[in-house]
Amino acid sequence: MSFEKASSVNAVGNNYEAHIADGWDILGNANGGYLMALGARAMAEASRPHPFTVTAHFLSPGMAGPISIHPETLKTGRRLNTMRASVRGPEKTIIELLGSFGEVEDVDGAVLVDAQPPELPSPEQCCHIIGSEKGFPPPIVDRLEMRLHPDDASLFQGQPSGKPVVRGWARLLDNEPVDAFGLMLIADAFPPTIFNARLPVAWVPTVEMTVQIRAIPAKGWLRCKFSTRFITGGMLEEDGEIWDGNGRLVALSRQLALLPRG
Amino acid sequence: MSFEKASSVNAVGNNYEAHIADGWDILGNANGGYLMALGARAMAEASRPHPFTVTAHFLSPGMAGPISIHPETLKTGRRLNTMRASVRGPEKTIIELLGSFGEVEDVDGAVLVDAQPPELPSPEQCCHIIGSEKGFPPPIVDRLEMRLHPDDASLFQGQPSGKPVVRGWARLLDNEPVDAFGLMLIADAFPPTIFNARLPVAWVPTVEMTVQIRAIPAKGWLRCKFSTRFITGGMLEEDGEIWDGNGRLVALSRQLALLPRG
Repeated sequence: MSFEKASSVNAVGNNYEAHIADGWDILGNANGGYLMALGARAMAEASRPHPFTVTAHFLSPGMAGPISIHPETLKTGRRLNTMRASVRGPEKTIIELLGSFGEVEDVDGAVLVDAQPPELPSPEQCCHIIGSEKGFPPPIVDRLEMRLHPDDASLFQGQPSGKPVVRGWARLLDNEPVDAFGLMLIADAFPPTIFNARLPVAWVPTVEMTVQIRAIPAKGWLRCKFSTRFITGGMLEEDGEIWDGNGRLVALSRQLALLPRG
Repeated sequence: MSFEKASSVNAVGNNYEAHIADGWDILGNANGGYLMALGARAMAEASRPHPFTVTAHFLSPGMAGPISIHPETLKTGRRLNTMRASVRGPEKTIIELLGSFGEVEDVDGAVLVDAQPPELPSPEQCCHIIGSEKGFPPPIVDRLEMRLHPDDASLFQGQPSGKPVVRGWARLLDNEPVDAFGLMLIADAFPPTIFNARLPVAWVPTVEMTVQIRAIPAKGWLRCKFSTRFITGGMLEEDGEIWDGNGRLVALSRQLALLPRG
């Protein structure tokens, strides 16, 4: 199933119906970036096509099956519409979103860039992550193509690098073009940085993720880097950069995750 | 007037009344971090005391005078409450917020930190920013104490450094203790980084700001660093770090601002 199909939404009155597809999960819970893409797509359909920045708070797990999305317009501006939305499962609200939407023409063109795309060996020289029947890596990794920097991939052999950084390439299956919503998926699809931190951590629930979509990527592999600088007591941030093949930053992400108490 | 008083809120039924104080503005519009502090304080009073992460979208200017704050509980969880809120002026919604609140005891204690506080000359060797009657620096800078790194301060003499970075010290007047909400104010109080970028920019409206509060600071001067890496077409991000005198990161902030079209 294409990402476009798996993240499609259908207007029903002022709300939207959608379906969390099978296989986009970690231990049965749908990937946070995928849920965010579903919510943001409905917000865009209800307002303007391009999500400049979207924030999601994660309230309860999203299970495969029907959901409804309830967007609300908070402001209709000249350049931006401010929108909120709730993504609801059969029993509970799954995520709550707040975002600003406009026209994609408004986001392109570099004026000043003081950063470089992450250096990566070619995709062929990186490590192909494939889902395991044992649940790790989880099925979601087979819904897209990911190639990890060899220095960051030893976590899969039980040998974390010691540095909470994960770098790699990503693209959708069959090289499906990645739209703004696909970037939200990719911003949350790599293994958590903390898996490389040599800490006894099995599961790091996301509290909040914000994704700035700064351009629509050119077709092909995307260069990605996720890093954590501060693991303090109850929580950690994970900062992401996604760059396209033309050397343009296309998305900046940051999430806050909870460290489970030991 | 203390920050505590300027950002106080009073419960009225399920909502809160507050007052945007005079002098916390830039050209008549209240500082975004100050507005965020007002909204987040009401969200905390309606739920749990500590804002782990709060996102604000800025819809219309906040003018000095009465406002009302309308929080709503989205989820009551074991460790976190997810809250939204609208801050409304007499005519329009000013900001819309989404955040997660819990107990401050849950956020302290470093597990792994891969960063250093910004290096700064002593406060006495940094540049004291004082509000100008001409409007720049704006009156808000007199509501707290700020000392800019000399390398970043020449923008006030019309000579931007060329690098979109602003570093400096901050504390509240009379060394008032800085709480979680005071950190939101400080996260938005320094001159915009883009003023150091040698670009013809007069005004950069904030679309969205997210502040993670990672600890409550020790009393005294806070080390702050704000930087921008990507000024692309329509927008730019501004990433902030605030560290306390004990060398602890206390807040991480990121905002997305619009580049006015020429």
